[in-house]
Amino acid sequence: MRKIILLLFIFHIFHLSAQEAIWWKTPTVSPEIYDNHMVTFRLVAPRAKEVLLVGDFLPPSYVVRDGITTQMTGTATLRKGADGVWTYTTLRPMEPGYYNYNFVVDGLTITDPSNIHMTRDVVKTSSIFFIEGGWSDYYKDQDVPHGTLSHVWYHCDKTERNRRLTVYTPAGYEDGLRYPVLYLLHGMGGDEDSWVTLGRAAQILDNLIAQGKAKPMIVVMTNSYMDLQAAPGHGPEGFIKPDLELSPSYDGVFEESFPSIIRYVDKAYHTIPRKQSRAIAGLSMGGFHAMQISRAYPDYFDYVGLFSAAVGHEAGDIQIYQNPMEKLRTQFSKKPALYWIAIGKEDFLYDANAEYVQLLETNRFRYEYFETDGGHTWYNWRFYLTEFLRRLF
Amino acid sequence: MRKIILLLFIFHIFHLSAQEAIWWKTPTVSPEIYDNHMVTFRLVAPRAKEVLLVGDFLPPSYVVRDGITTQMTGTATLRKGADGVWTYTTLRPMEPGYYNYNFVVDGLTITDPSNIHMTRDVVKTSSIFFIEGGWSDYYKDQDVPHGTLSHVWYHCDKTERNRRLTVYTPAGYEDGLRYPVLYLLHGMGGDEDSWVTLGRAAQILDNLIAQGKAKPMIVVMTNSYMDLQAAPGHGPEGFIKPDLELSPSYDGVFEESFPSIIRYVDKAYHTIPRKQSRAIAGLSMGGFHAMQISRAYPDYFDYVGLFSAAVGHEAGDIQIYQNPMEKLRTQFSKKPALYWIAIGKEDFLYDANAEYVQLLETNRFRYEYFETDGGHTWYNWRFYLTEFLRRLF
Repeated sequence: MRKIILLLFIFHIFHLSAQEAIWWKTPTVSPEIYDNHMVTFRLVAPRAKEVLLVGDFLPPSYVVRDGITTQMTGTATLRKGADGVWTYTTLRPMEPGYYNYNFVVDGLTITDPSNIHMTRDVVKTSSIFFIEGGWSDYYKDQDVPHGTLSHVWYHCDKTERNRRLTVYTPAGYEDGLRYPVLYLLHGMGGDEDSWVTLGRAAQILDNLIAQGKAKPMIVVMTNSYMDLQAAPGHGPEGFIKPDLELSPSYDGVFEESFPSIIRYVDKAYHTIPRKQSRAIAGLSMGGFHAMQISRAYPDYFDYVGLFSAAVGHEAGDIQIYQNPMEKLRTQFSKKPALYWIAIGKEDFLYDANAEYVQLLETNRFRYEYFETDGGHTWYNWRFYLTEFLRRLF
Repeated sequence: MRKIILLLFIFHIFHLSAQEAIWWKTPTVSPEIYDNHMVTFRLVAPRAKEVLLVGDFLPPSYVVRDGITTQMTGTATLRKGADGVWTYTTLRPMEPGYYNYNFVVDGLTITDPSNIHMTRDVVKTSSIFFIEGGWSDYYKDQDVPHGTLSHVWYHCDKTERNRRLTVYTPAGYEDGLRYPVLYLLHGMGGDEDSWVTLGRAAQILDNLIAQGKAKPMIVVMTNSYMDLQAAPGHGPEGFIKPDLELSPSYDGVFEESFPSIIRYVDKAYHTIPRKQSRAIAGLSMGGFHAMQISRAYPDYFDYVGLFSAAVGHEAGDIQIYQNPMEKLRTQFSKKPALYWIAIGKEDFLYDANAEYVQLLETNRFRYEYFETDGGHTWYNWRFYLTEFLRRLF
């Protein structure tokens, strides 16, 4: 007994010969969230000259360049203590929310080494934390029945390759009932994991279903970059970096391939394989895809959600994008149960969405319009998903 | 068309008003892996005074303290260019492998901001990269049929709580055949995700099964910290940090709860629910668990794998650990198909394993012993898993 304790003790203190070098402890607590929702951030960096905090929760600054006013993410300055620990405490209690931040150490942007929780948006990785209460409780892992989150592979007939999907099946799915399906699409630079990691879709579904505010459903998250088989680091492409120019997804191939995804899902899962039990939604570029796919296949989806959608993106001579008005007329003649457009007042796609709404209005196509504050942000997309799910099936 | 292109262009260049601040590109390439397997690491840090590279692939250094020689993870010094970019190029081509590294910037350890691929081991997050060829090809995402990786929740009768499992089902599982099951256990500070993220278990299984070197099987990865419901950040405990002292798992509760995991798996999955089609293996503390569980329930498992196992950990007065020799005699009287012990020559648990092997030897219990170079590392555990899987079912 004594020998083992000694060995474990040594293992804690030293990196023993050829053992894995693990930091068993990071004594620094950061972020420290107090009961009153004030937050202290800490970084041990005795040799640094300047440490800034960059976060989506800090008051923004503005830069004017070439006549364009740009809102920069807010920053705060950490103060160095005699012990070499830099600290910053928020000026007031924080609103409930799901926040991200980085430190900037002498100009170098890093995540918080004391916080193991982080999330990646395209090529930027940030540290994350939660302030409980309000809307953020929908995004939290609550102690409710949980659905299953699976990474599955389907065969894409269009590209003749195996491709990866992320699939949510609701708690109790194993009991064999059949469920409606929502297809949920990412934006530029995203992938089949984005709605789960940044969008917190699994938690939102668990919580809404547990509260009886959404119907139990299957949610299928796709990858619209058809040059890839999977999210970076999960496919045979290897440890690639997302590159928006590498594989634009405004060429119609994803839309044309969509029926093979639906065929796979209806075969592999206990779905209700009919229009009334199928929804499609997407954010930004994914909103464009949802618009195109629901229009090209008017008998597939009874529910359509366009979140900050790139609706104005033009078609060029891509075949599946042709004759939009004719297709729209056909789609709306079949009376979709819900055609839902959500946009933030400060979104750079606000005008394009206003134009699209005007077009629907002029043609007396029935839609619902949901306008919020804010812009082209995951803060809004999580909120839109929460609202959209309550309206389904 | 022009308008949209302009908008997208602006979106790329600036962070527009209230848009999500995303780095669409990181122009720096790091690590850059050349065809000849030399590697260059780069960090943009014009204001830094010193940048080190720390990696498991660099020649180690040695520190003697209180008479104990400690091998420190190898470091290399990056050189600063006139452009403020620090670089280091390996002295020679690297061996095939799956490697991790960090930068140390003026004493502050960070991940590589130009590399989106990283992995967490307990509280340490490192950047990762691959050198193709050799063994590392087993750990790569190859273009082969892929199994499904699911995060599922079972009800633990022992703790009366929902708890999270990671489950691999082989390609073709949907066709309804029944499969044998391997239960795979993590070590101290790990969780139900460790074998997937650090152990690359899904890739190893996909590749071995595709090559006909392992039988298609279900693999169930558990969480032995019974105070928790899930890995940090995936349960109602919130964004906690792993803490080895918070919830030691040498108290027998995990072992006693194991039958409820097996009951859940045999109910929820198409298993072959019999001893001949069940295996259990674990690393370090998980090896101790695999030893205890297979011994306490001698009719459950025909295959047992102890990888760098903490076999010498003492039992105290925990009930399920009592009468080890009597239990071992019962277990071996039932002639397990494989009792496999793997250990590295430099592992700090080498002596404890040698003692355990001696005990098995003395009692003429039939086992297989697999000795390798190296120590208590994921490098070895990935290798042991690869070897163990080939011997199953």
